[in-house]
Amino acid sequence: MDERWTLHPDRALPADPTTRPLAREIYAAVRDLPIVSMHGHVPVEWFADDAPFGDPAQLVVVPDHYLTRMLVSQGETLPRLGVGSTEDEAAETDPREIWRRFCAGWKHFRGTPTRYWLEHVLVEILGVTQRPSAETADALYDQVAARLAAQEFRPRALLDAFNIEAIATTDPAWATLDAHAKLAADGYGDRVLPTFRPDPLLHVDRTTWRDDVARLGEAAGVDVTTYDRYLEALRAQRERFVAAGARATDHGHLYADTTPLDDAEARRILDAALAGTVTAAEAQAFSGHMLFQMAAMSAEDGLVMQLHPGVLRDHASGPSAAFGPDKGYDIPVVTEFTHSLRPVLDAFGHHPGFRMIAFTVDEDVYSRELAPLAGVYPALRLGAPWWFLDAPDAMRRFREAATETAGFSNMSGFVDDTRAFCSIPARHDLARRVDAGYLARLVAEHRLDLDEALDVAADLTYRLPQAAYARA
Amino acid sequence: MDERWTLHPDRALPADPTTRPLAREIYAAVRDLPIVSMHGHVPVEWFADDAPFGDPAQLVVVPDHYLTRMLVSQGETLPRLGVGSTEDEAAETDPREIWRRFCAGWKHFRGTPTRYWLEHVLVEILGVTQRPSAETADALYDQVAARLAAQEFRPRALLDAFNIEAIATTDPAWATLDAHAKLAADGYGDRVLPTFRPDPLLHVDRTTWRDDVARLGEAAGVDVTTYDRYLEALRAQRERFVAAGARATDHGHLYADTTPLDDAEARRILDAALAGTVTAAEAQAFSGHMLFQMAAMSAEDGLVMQLHPGVLRDHASGPSAAFGPDKGYDIPVVTEFTHSLRPVLDAFGHHPGFRMIAFTVDEDVYSRELAPLAGVYPALRLGAPWWFLDAPDAMRRFREAATETAGFSNMSGFVDDTRAFCSIPARHDLARRVDAGYLARLVAEHRLDLDEALDVAADLTYRLPQAAYARA
Amino acid sequence: MDERWTLHPDRALPADPTTRPLAREIYAAVRDLPIVSMHGHVPVEWFADDAPFGDPAQLVVVPDHYLTRMLVSQGETLPRLGVGSTEDEAAETDPREIWRRFCAGWKHFRGTPTRYWLEHVLVEILGVTQRPSAETADALYDQVAARLAAQEFRPRALLDAFNIEAIATTDPAWATLDAHAKLAADGYGDRVLPTFRPDPLLHVDRTTWRDDVARLGEAAGVDVTTYDRYLEALRAQRERFVAAGARATDHGHLYADTTPLDDAEARRILDAALAGTVTAAEAQAFSGHMLFQMAAMSAEDGLVMQLHPGVLRDHASGPSAAFGPDKGYDIPVVTEFTHSLRPVLDAFGHHPGFRMIAFTVDEDVYSRELAPLAGVYPALRLGAPWWFLDAPDAMRRFREAATETAGFSNMSGFVDDTRAFCSIPARHDLARRVDAGYLARLVAEHRLDLDEALDVAADLTYRLPQAAYARA
Repeated sequence: MDERWTLHPDRALPADPTTRPLAREIYAAVRDLPIVSMHGHVPVEWFADDAPFGDPAQLVVVPDHYLTRMLVSQGETLPRLGVGSTEDEAAETDPREIWRRFCAGWKHFRGTPTRYWLEHVLVEILGVTQRPSAETADALYDQVAARLAAQEFRPRALLDAFNIEAIATTDPAWATLDAHAKLAADGYGDRVLPTFRPDPLLHVDRTTWRDDVARLGEAAGVDVTTYDRYLEALRAQRERFVAAGARATDHGHLYADTTPLDDAEARRILDAALAGTVTAAEAQAFSGHMLFQMAAMSAEDGLVMQLHPGVLRDHASGPSAAFGPDKGYDIPVVTEFTHSLRPVLDAFGHHPGFRMIAFTVDEDVYSRELAPLAGVYPALRLGAPWWFLDAPDAMRRFREAATETAGFSNMSGFVDDTRAFCSIPARHDLARRVDAGYLARLVAEHRLDLDEALDVAADLTYRLPQAAYARA
Repeated sequence: MDERWTLHPDRALPADPTTRPLAREIYAAVRDLPIVSMHGHVPVEWFADDAPFGDPAQLVVVPDHYLTRMLVSQGETLPRLGVGSTEDEAAETDPREIWRRFCAGWKHFRGTPTRYWLEHVLVEILGVTQRPSAETADALYDQVAARLAAQEFRPRALLDAFNIEAIATTDPAWATLDAHAKLAADGYGDRVLPTFRPDPLLHVDRTTWRDDVARLGEAAGVDVTTYDRYLEALRAQRERFVAAGARATDHGHLYADTTPLDDAEARRILDAALAGTVTAAEAQAFSGHMLFQMAAMSAEDGLVMQLHPGVLRDHASGPSAAFGPDKGYDIPVVTEFTHSLRPVLDAFGHHPGFRMIAFTVDEDVYSRELAPLAGVYPALRLGAPWWFLDAPDAMRRFREAATETAGFSNMSGFVDDTRAFCSIPARHDLARRVDAGYLARLVAEHRLDLDEALDVAADLTYRLPQAAYARA
Repeated sequence: MDERWTLHPDRALPADPTTRPLAREIYAAVRDLPIVSMHGHVPVEWFADDAPFGDPAQLVVVPDHYLTRMLVSQGETLPRLGVGSTEDEAAETDPREIWRRFCAGWKHFRGTPTRYWLEHVLVEILGVTQRPSAETADALYDQVAARLAAQEFRPRALLDAFNIEAIATTDPAWATLDAHAKLAADGYGDRVLPTFRPDPLLHVDRTTWRDDVARLGEAAGVDVTTYDRYLEALRAQRERFVAAGARATDHGHLYADTTPLDDAEARRILDAALAGTVTAAEAQAFSGHMLFQMAAMSAEDGLVMQLHPGVLRDHASGPSAAFGPDKGYDIPVVTEFTHSLRPVLDAFGHHPGFRMIAFTVDEDVYSRELAPLAGVYPALRLGAPWWFLDAPDAMRRFREAATETAGFSNMSGFVDDTRAFCSIPARHDLARRVDAGYLARLVAEHRLDLDEALDVAADLTYRLPQAAYARA
């Protein structure tokens, strides 16, 4: 390949010659709509500080667990990729070496969305003109490093360049939101929004729980010595988030269970947790109880409740101990929604102040559980295909399996859910293309008229995320 | 859109230019075959009385829970759609208002089979020429109301117009089948057939159970004071159904479990149920036991056993209490067949007098459980994709997932399962198109010859439903 | 059909006119690569003895449970197909009669992979020129019988004709591997390889267990009177298999569970098993424990560990008792990998000497569990779609569901897993076509460049099976 590396304008559109022109037309109508990124993991400090990004490895490779996990599966190690050190192996400190390992492993991304996103980032954003490989690694490194030094590559400038109308960060429930305050003072208050994430506080048998509760109490100005104080502190911090422009909460439980306990039992378990005597079964029951309480508070304060269940964290004990969470060893499990959401939906499913957006990494529930639930309860919206399912064929399967029962109006539209800031345009672009392809097929099969498909495409891209994440 | 609203002749056929002409040819060969509608929920009184239908809202909107649930999910309420009243809200009594709400919500059906069926009903059967919308609602109402008043719109006339060769109703096990007798007297005895549905009698902890058993006893002329009398009454009513032309029974259990109890335990539980002291666990075990007993009776009397498991009824307590069953709050759950059907298939799976047709709303079992089971046991046939899965993409997935293991000969062919009488032609038409598209792909990929595909299409449309529902 | 029966060169390639030429090009590049058949069930004696095959029925019909089960589901019986006798029905002894029944049932294979494989075998290998039917059965029988008598139809000649570079047999753990020794002496030592299959020894409550353990002890020269001797005997036999060229072990458990017991508990259960007092629960726990031990031994001796879980054997008690295992009554169940494989992957998932290849007949786990696991653990590879899923549409779904997370490099490539020797070329050919079609779509959608697709196709066909089954 000595020809210049370019991206094809029709990529990720259906190949069939009847459908592709329709897909092109639908995609063209939404390609340039603003990005509404209502759930993600970009550090708020990037926008608050607006400092230049580091080196190419620190920007593209090290923080992206999609990328590092694939290289690990093929024999690289996290230390060699700069992610951290183990007793046996120190973290690589030379970013050029890390970059070389990434480029040498380029082949392994074939067929994955990481490949699509990286192509987009490398070519469209970082100006790379050659395919990554062992041979081209150094030249690419120099090219990218030069780009990162440019003024127009600061985070706030990229918000404009990426056409991001609003972006939500994910913040611990005990956050004081100082960075968001600085952003508000700088005029970014409507553009960078916090999200309330209380997970560690709701799992009362985690080793860090008592420290985390102390942090919550400090932030809220509440001495958390009882269950009532615990709820009071959570409520106070939710109010702080609301005041700072938050639209939503986010909940990453292993199970979707929302069964409430009676107050006495909840008090008893919380006391046991504070005393350090709680059992795993009690903690599990309490986490379901607290999802119900979070729903009740959402019905009061209007924060949209995002539920991300079904992932077993830290599957490998060694890497998790050495490198911490989110390093590739989180693996999905069977997820149940019909029984699990019944308590919350029975209580708040028709409440005008409540909205839940449910995500899954278990696609088996689309047609069986999530679409039937979202297709009747006004409070429930289906989130975008999440994590391992945020990929072209998986997104298509989501549309095909969920739409026939839930329709489009019960969807959240696209949510990128990423910490890889530069990949946000690529992810939204891919989703727009996949949706255009799906809608084009409906038109080509005369199941939808073209004017309707164009309207739905704009809904999915722009209007539905805005509506789904508007406080209820 | 001021152009006239019409339906495209190629709708729901594959777009790919190689496959579409083949699909057209296959569809054309089965388009006009008679409808064999062997499972459904049209009230038998419609045919017995042959009275005119009511207003457009009562015909199209109010009784169709697919339609009302979608509108509810987008903020309408069941009272505003005329379905019933709550303490807070009286049922809408003006059919024109209900019709307007339906038309205003037309957008929300995009991408759903309801949209396809309604288009077909509105354009082909009701003669509507404009898309529904808030603006066109009144004109459409008048147009439809005029059509309903016509003599050729009486139920029996529609049986002819729809080319329905036979239609089965679903009737409680205690039915005396008077309407069917009237139909037989009028020459419709081979055309409108009863189906024996004993569900409420087999779930001995339902609040209505003792009343229902009393009704069974009265119909059968058996005083149901013991387990043996209970079986005797069921057997007597099955005989009545057989005499009235019934082909099948229908069983809508939460679980597919068919584990028999020993007689002493069954007697003990039935006695407890009569005494009102049965537990939920006993009732659950008894319902599985009774599925086994129903299979044993089918092996004797030849009634085909339809099994519809896996739906949690009345998910929302409020709406279910206010409006009754089947108002949109029935949600599927994980369903298991391999272990569950083992007792029945081990006992009767090779019995020449026994045939079971299994349906699922959990599509995960197609390739894993149902196709392997149907692909070896002569007594088992796979039913059509059911309820939430009776939709173009879901039907295609069924063909793709089940055929490779079960073949076509182990299928029931299409079953419409509807209470929306006017949608029956639309549903059969859609199934014929989807099957034509699937078969056309097999031909285009040279996995089947065209003469074979034409033969299979006729099997799926006409011959297999006849054969599957012929008493064994 | 009086025209000559031929196979279309484009069969099983995508129909869409943009994709098909690409698929043709990719398929053409791998069509003639050697067959690497690293897991299967062809009897080793066929190659050791190199005797002529029997009659057409014994070659094609009787041993193929895919074929006989379909005929049974449509009313044939296993005795009438020559599989065995029951109390009521003696096995058919006339091969021509069996052949006629097969030909008369040809229609029932439409849409199944059996149809594709049989077409290939009949036309390409057996030289048949007419479609099977009741009318053509006798002519076909004579044609095939003549072919079988030819010298070039001996098993070793077919190895060359089929371009099989290497083929693995599956052998009981107590095998003395005499046939493999004979093959090695004849120069086939690198071409026909044994596989270590210890299942009956790891399920200590099977009725045959004590006999099987005695056979193990005899083969290994170890008197198995304790748990330590049991492990010693297994280890000794693994060494024998390694010495004979084995690459892999194979494990067909109902559950994928790999939870180890502590040594004392393992000893206690093994003692109970030897004493005949073991419980089902103990045996179940012990089988998981032994999977862990097998993994530990694999990490020592480098035998690749194949795991084939999730099939409930002998679903029908009558046929299983009369005809033995693998006669069509094995049915998949829900399979869990995330929790189940955690002990083994946590212990050996990064071990340089360990490799596991996981197979499933529950396709629901592809995107949820298997691809995420294989996409991070270096020791894990995903096997090919297995058994009921070794079919065109199922293979396509596997690629679509697993690749986006696992990539191609974490796959085993194709594994035929058959006892139907003559179908091996057909099975590999079909897999190559389906992969070509999938890759062609990625190219047509500009998700992969053509040079990359050609490289991946060769990986999946040839390089990945070699690499996956190279001893670690």
